[in-house]
Amino acid sequence: MRAHPDRLKVVALAAGSNADRLRDQAAEFGVTVTALASETGSAGLVRVATHPEADIVICASSGTDGLEAVLAAIEAGKTIALANKEVLVMAGALVTDAARARGVSILPVDSEHNAVHQCLHGRRREEIRRIILTASGGPFRSMPAAALADVTPEDALRHPTWRMGRKITIDSATLMNKGLEVIEAHWLFDLPAAQIDVVIHPQSIVHSMVELNDGSIIAQLGGADMKLPIQYACSYPERWAAPVARLDLTAAGRLDFEKPDFERFPCLGLAYRALEAGPSQAVVLNAANEVAVASYLEEKISFVSIPRVIEQAMAAHTPVAVSTLEGVREVDRWARLYSQNVARGLELKV
Amino acid sequence: MRAHPDRLKVVALAAGSNADRLRDQAAEFGVTVTALASETGSAGLVRVATHPEADIVICASSGTDGLEAVLAAIEAGKTIALANKEVLVMAGALVTDAARARGVSILPVDSEHNAVHQCLHGRRREEIRRIILTASGGPFRSMPAAALADVTPEDALRHPTWRMGRKITIDSATLMNKGLEVIEAHWLFDLPAAQIDVVIHPQSIVHSMVELNDGSIIAQLGGADMKLPIQYACSYPERWAAPVARLDLTAAGRLDFEKPDFERFPCLGLAYRALEAGPSQAVVLNAANEVAVASYLEEKISFVSIPRVIEQAMAAHTPVAVSTLEGVREVDRWARLYSQNVARGLELKV
Repeated sequence: MRAHPDRLKVVALAAGSNADRLRDQAAEFGVTVTALASETGSAGLVRVATHPEADIVICASSGTDGLEAVLAAIEAGKTIALANKEVLVMAGALVTDAARARGVSILPVDSEHNAVHQCLHGRRREEIRRIILTASGGPFRSMPAAALADVTPEDALRHPTWRMGRKITIDSATLMNKGLEVIEAHWLFDLPAAQIDVVIHPQSIVHSMVELNDGSIIAQLGGADMKLPIQYACSYPERWAAPVARLDLTAAGRLDFEKPDFERFPCLGLAYRALEAGPSQAVVLNAANEVAVASYLEEKISFVSIPRVIEQAMAAHTPVAVSTLEGVREVDRWARLYSQNVARGLELKV
Repeated sequence: MRAHPDRLKVVALAAGSNADRLRDQAAEFGVTVTALASETGSAGLVRVATHPEADIVICASSGTDGLEAVLAAIEAGKTIALANKEVLVMAGALVTDAARARGVSILPVDSEHNAVHQCLHGRRREEIRRIILTASGGPFRSMPAAALADVTPEDALRHPTWRMGRKITIDSATLMNKGLEVIEAHWLFDLPAAQIDVVIHPQSIVHSMVELNDGSIIAQLGGADMKLPIQYACSYPERWAAPVARLDLTAAGRLDFEKPDFERFPCLGLAYRALEAGPSQAVVLNAANEVAVASYLEEKISFVSIPRVIEQAMAAHTPVAVSTLEGVREVDRWARLYSQNVARGLELKV
């Protein structure tokens, strides 16, 4: 917003609970409509997301806090710039059906999906053989399986290339983050699991790729700076000069690619299994993962217990149709309770 | 043509001097109109290139043999699939002016330019910051400067990734091939030298890249199989399944990038200089290079004398406007004679 005051105007701002920062930003950008979710709840977010002057709504809330607001923004005909995985993992069918019905675009801000969007630009659906999401592989990429049982949250929070929040950094270490992105990609690009691949690329320079039907692969490369995908979503279908450092491939020197290890990192396989089992199983996967990661961050369960919690919750769930937000929330509640019990059973003895 | 008999039909075929192969191919594809340049000269090529049933003319002749035929095909409104560098290096202005006037597309078959064309698809001119041509670096990429004086044609003909003819393989070892491609890119994409960069990429998997104005880089990757760019030029703007091996990046494992060394490989810098000096200097560059490479292949001059011949010919030439094919040929003739004299002066003492 600072880089393009001539092209972009903030008309409304919402935040979670940081009132000071919200006030400062509102002052800087001359915004009169604001909402603090910790005070107004979903109603405030909906009011911001449906502001009559807004063309684009950027949803960067975490978890499912922004779900009602995203659906309301779609209903109001806004273009959605989506930086939140859970919205699509939990309610992908609801959200994409609503967007299709209303003729609204969902532009991905997640760097991998943003890269795929860039690679697909101008190409026809039937030309796409598969998309290839890249993954840094996290801090334990080369660690032997036996050593994984003992990794601490502190070890896991040292992400090699991106600086992110605690939960997503653990998800990156387990590869669940990539698993959630596979599900997200399914909804964003309307492709089955078989056409979504993952490749480990430790340098995080190739943000993702698309293989076309003639065997050609189109890739998007860039630095590790979220300003680029955020701006892309705001400027699309145009592109504007961006306030990001230029990528010098000769300084990077080397790009590596390897297959993900589904044995050492079972979360990735669980995500594929959830995607194939249908929408309600993805809700369970996401909820069980949140519970398991929270337990791990509290040092109650071990790193290798994270996929065990998820697997047991998924095994206990019988997939059901979820056609409403309340249906989603119900499965989510059940999965959290069930996973908490499983996690308790796996707690480390002190 | 064998892969897509339902979509493609060969209506005319031309060859240089291999009468047997031309006859076999004409029989296989049921072609009645053929021309053998060694017998009919340019007239036969023109007849083939302007065949009334042809939509696309693929020009894959070497040197400037195909120049008249390409111009005639443009005049006849054919789409040109161009696999010949010299046509644009020597007569880029003539050819692209004619194509623009006639509304004819020139689709590049050279793998690097084909990659750039793929990366540019669907993007607007003002979004392009620069194109980045990749170069394998040739067999002497890591050789110390002092050792280059003694490399034999046999050493130079061992190209690391592509199997090609003798002349182009030497051009690849001197980096002149990349220099000619910089000039070719200038004409194909209407970009100045300052917006055309070269990066050494020994694996030849990234065929080339485009940097956009927001800092994003779009790359095209594929195996080292010319079937892909040839088919792309025939199918464009569509894409069809292609009979090429799928690229497995995890099998390749690693992609390297480094800056080209203009000291050890002066031919690349000479090409940039020629491009900046204007069309007639590019004709001199190309002619002098052909003479120098021929002398080197005959083991009359050393590898490091190749750029010396070119540099001296360029220094002796005063750039002139060349607005006709005859004008181009005149500069070409002068440059060949001059370079032969220079090369003679640099001959190795036995």
